[in-house]
Amino acid sequence: MIIIGLDPGIAITGYGVLSLEGTSYHVKTFDCINTSSKLPLTLRLQKIYHELCNLFEQWQPAELAVEQLFFNKNVKTALMVGQARGVSLLAAAQAGVQVFEYTPLQVKQSVTGSGRADKQQVQYMVRAVLGLPEVPKPDDVADALGVAICHCHMRGGG
Amino acid sequence: MIIIGLDPGIAITGYGVLSLEGTSYHVKTFDCINTSSKLPLTLRLQKIYHELCNLFEQWQPAELAVEQLFFNKNVKTALMVGQARGVSLLAAAQAGVQVFEYTPLQVKQSVTGSGRADKQQVQYMVRAVLGLPEVPKPDDVADALGVAICHCHMRGGG
Repeated sequence: MIIIGLDPGIAITGYGVLSLEGTSYHVKTFDCINTSSKLPLTLRLQKIYHELCNLFEQWQPAELAVEQLFFNKNVKTALMVGQARGVSLLAAAQAGVQVFEYTPLQVKQSVTGSGRADKQQVQYMVRAVLGLPEVPKPDDVADALGVAICHCHMRGGG
Repeated sequence: MIIIGLDPGIAITGYGVLSLEGTSYHVKTFDCINTSSKLPLTLRLQKIYHELCNLFEQWQPAELAVEQLFFNKNVKTALMVGQARGVSLLAAAQAGVQVFEYTPLQVKQSVTGSGRADKQQVQYMVRAVLGLPEVPKPDDVADALGVAICHCHMRGGG
């Protein structure tokens, strides 16, 4: 089955596509959707929505994993992230993809074995368990792969 | 031409439909979209999106007016409002409706003549200029009508 991990944002929405078979998973692809700050907000939201609809159409994921909303960012960031997250979850719902949410703590714990792991440690493990030559960039892509791995582990894979 | 004012929120999304002819406007309808907190977030977002798509299909508005994001609410509220706002603006973009944003100050000033007006004063004027028997409830509906009136005034109507 196909699992997609997503890290939604207005400027950059990272995604990672994993294939989970029994208890083992491997990476199919990963990338991000970029929107220019020169575009009006409505068009940025529309681009994120359309590209995710295409992604779900192409990969037919069974399940989508996203981090739960961060409450420690500032209000302006939260409003912008919220708008991108809204259209991302809508795209999943429209495609009939079930959504699973994990806290940052669950992702760290599940990917590295420690809830106190720092960002570098999470990125190191994402690279290592997926057998990638280097850490995926930008951070949004590594984060999206991290939450996808977390979901595979939670389902009993890995 | 038809103008729709919108006040997006996860639990309640208020809307007001005005008809603007030359410099005069009148109210066509107003109501709100409610979503139950018992539903998963994805289904709540989907309901808001679908009902707004139907609204835009029914009324074929030329323009949509929404308040600019509030930055003085708390982060949790901002994230939830952001998600509802994201799917609302997406619905407008999908329907080809142009979106105009106004600050709370602009709405107050435009509806009451004073940027220092309180909520009651704005609601009083919304009721009065639209010739309604009473203030529309809940507040989200009155707020949606307020931003729609603001947009009519800004366009030179009223």
